[in-house]
Amino acid sequence: MDIIVQKFGGSSLTTKEVRDRAINKIVDIKNKGYYPVVVVSAMGRNGDPYATDTLLGLVKPIYSNLAKREMDLLLSCGEIISAVVFVAALEERGYPAVALTGGQAGIITDSNFSNAKILQVNPKKIIDFLHKGKIVVVAGFQGITEKNEITTLGRGGSDTTASALGVALNAVEIQIYTDVDGIMTADPRIVPDAKILEVITYHEICEMALQGAKVIHPRAVEIAMEKGIPIRVKNTFTDAEGTLIIAHDSRKTKIKNDRIITGISYIENVVQIKVNISSPSTKAETELKVFRTLAENSISLDLLNILSDVIIFTVQESEAEKAVDLLKRNGFDVQVRPDCAKVSVVGAGMRGMPGVMATIVEALNKAKVDILQTADSHTTISCLVKMSELVNAVKALHDSFDLGY
Amino acid sequence: MDIIVQKFGGSSLTTKEVRDRAINKIVDIKNKGYYPVVVVSAMGRNGDPYATDTLLGLVKPIYSNLAKREMDLLLSCGEIISAVVFVAALEERGYPAVALTGGQAGIITDSNFSNAKILQVNPKKIIDFLHKGKIVVVAGFQGITEKNEITTLGRGGSDTTASALGVALNAVEIQIYTDVDGIMTADPRIVPDAKILEVITYHEICEMALQGAKVIHPRAVEIAMEKGIPIRVKNTFTDAEGTLIIAHDSRKTKIKNDRIITGISYIENVVQIKVNISSPSTKAETELKVFRTLAENSISLDLLNILSDVIIFTVQESEAEKAVDLLKRNGFDVQVRPDCAKVSVVGAGMRGMPGVMATIVEALNKAKVDILQTADSHTTISCLVKMSELVNAVKALHDSFDLGY
Repeated sequence: MDIIVQKFGGSSLTTKEVRDRAINKIVDIKNKGYYPVVVVSAMGRNGDPYATDTLLGLVKPIYSNLAKREMDLLLSCGEIISAVVFVAALEERGYPAVALTGGQAGIITDSNFSNAKILQVNPKKIIDFLHKGKIVVVAGFQGITEKNEITTLGRGGSDTTASALGVALNAVEIQIYTDVDGIMTADPRIVPDAKILEVITYHEICEMALQGAKVIHPRAVEIAMEKGIPIRVKNTFTDAEGTLIIAHDSRKTKIKNDRIITGISYIENVVQIKVNISSPSTKAETELKVFRTLAENSISLDLLNILSDVIIFTVQESEAEKAVDLLKRNGFDVQVRPDCAKVSVVGAGMRGMPGVMATIVEALNKAKVDILQTADSHTTISCLVKMSELVNAVKALHDSFDLGY
Repeated sequence: MDIIVQKFGGSSLTTKEVRDRAINKIVDIKNKGYYPVVVVSAMGRNGDPYATDTLLGLVKPIYSNLAKREMDLLLSCGEIISAVVFVAALEERGYPAVALTGGQAGIITDSNFSNAKILQVNPKKIIDFLHKGKIVVVAGFQGITEKNEITTLGRGGSDTTASALGVALNAVEIQIYTDVDGIMTADPRIVPDAKILEVITYHEICEMALQGAKVIHPRAVEIAMEKGIPIRVKNTFTDAEGTLIIAHDSRKTKIKNDRIITGISYIENVVQIKVNISSPSTKAETELKVFRTLAENSISLDLLNILSDVIIFTVQESEAEKAVDLLKRNGFDVQVRPDCAKVSVVGAGMRGMPGVMATIVEALNKAKVDILQTADSHTTISCLVKMSELVNAVKALHDSFDLGY
């Protein structure tokens, strides 16, 4: 039984025209002899699991202090409604289909309400229905605990459901439907000659997602990667092949051996914070206290550098005021640089390749972009720049690595 | 642990004012040391389980051919949303509460989607939460099969959920909240001096409900009756005591020994059908064919009389055309009398009492109401009258039995 998991966002069912296109994608696969397992999000929940839902928004704004357990129960209805709407549309086209809640689909999670983690998948019910010739439509973004409590997955949402099902069902492919033709070498709003990537590795797409690309959630990629199930990012509205996400050493790889850089991504609205260390004797103590204070207040740090007399890091703009207040209240000498952005050059091929950093520095200097800070990992080099210079930086880097070839 | 089950309709949460009054009723009970278990319907589902729901109505009209399994999945969200809204409102008032789906509350049903029957109740989760000091709010009108399929209960809906939980939890009382002060001796829109009944038996309320009174579903009464759990019909908007529904021989009974008649109820828009039997030799065959034909087409008959040369019965107006067509197509000689109503005099005390029928006939004759047909059971005498004479008939009967004393 060759199963393909297909994930559609809630925007795929807002109008009949859009819904028809999503249904076409399912029907195509079915007619080719595959067994489709469809995962859907709630209407209005576009990637962001906390976006105001068109249905649940009716009751949600009234109550701000709802417990996470009850909020999950409420939110889970959004995906159930979507699943039923998809089933109705499939049946209308003459394709027998059934809707399953996350729990019915066997998505077992921990009891961390609003941000639950999938512990295991028992896809017995899905397989039974597939054997009966049904197209199975699963409500994404939700699961059930072993104590029968209903949870939502938080980070990664329905993408994660799709990946977990793809792994549990040993699917041929996990297809994530979006409104773009695939993963691009850079944001096309900034770089008009950005190209669609035919193939990309799990590691590269994770890096790009972590560095700001919004096509698929890294958690979903990690899950598929563990069992090597290919993910394909496709467009609901075109017949484009999309971007295939696979392991680097996959037999199916079409990744050019000479490709060093995969793409350029970015994160806007970042604030750089410097904490000065008054004397070498207090350095260790200062470091510990700074990181402990911020961690205890759940503030995420990025681009972290510890130097001899200063600690430098960035935080998201939304958390900057809180971070600075905390540090000042603890008596630290703090300098703040607002209005920054992080630009990242991502590519599994850069590992061990000399000269990548040189190319980056040359490109940015030529474009008169100030480099405020840098960080690098095996597959990524990131530079902090001023927000006002972000567009120039992305364009310059995209050009310098010939990504628009 | 003294548990009281309280059931509120979906109309109890449409506005903050209404919601507050429902919450007051729960809080009152809690403050008196009882353990409240609350059952709620969906917003917009006012007694009629198939009324267009304010939330689900958004998607429902699009799809007429949705399978019952998926329709149940969709509809079940309505009550879940209500339960979460109640929990939020309770928490706002400082009372810890949890929402449970029907399945989580342990309502196990058969797999007859859209009209499932409760097979058993496993209230373990409810009891656990009660022990933790939580007010438990259960989504009514729904259950789960042993194969983990979500069902809705159809007939009786949330009232049935409340009764089944009342029995399983051995509740002190099941309270059904409405917008009236209790069960009345007749419809107050017709009989201005109709009175609230302080006490009524399970059998009487079942008869009154079957004969057209809309306060509580007979299925819910039957379930509570089996274990003798008292039901109280109360008003969300007043402090009235309401009407207590108990067994006739209950120790707590306050039912006056001399009360013969409990109340007058009615069903509007009934059509009388007569099928003539052409000769005595075909009588048995005709009878069989008439009833089989109507049964196979799921047409419900009422006020059935078989005489020597004619079969007389009534059907609801909505089914009359279909019934007549079927009978004519099978070659029967059919006479139809449209625009009728059935008036019923209900009272457990009439059993074996002579003269009740005489009083009815006298009252209707005096009011110049034509009696078109009659039927009687242990606790009920029903008369078919013209729709145009219904109001006079109800008033005359109410007066003649001194129900407005």
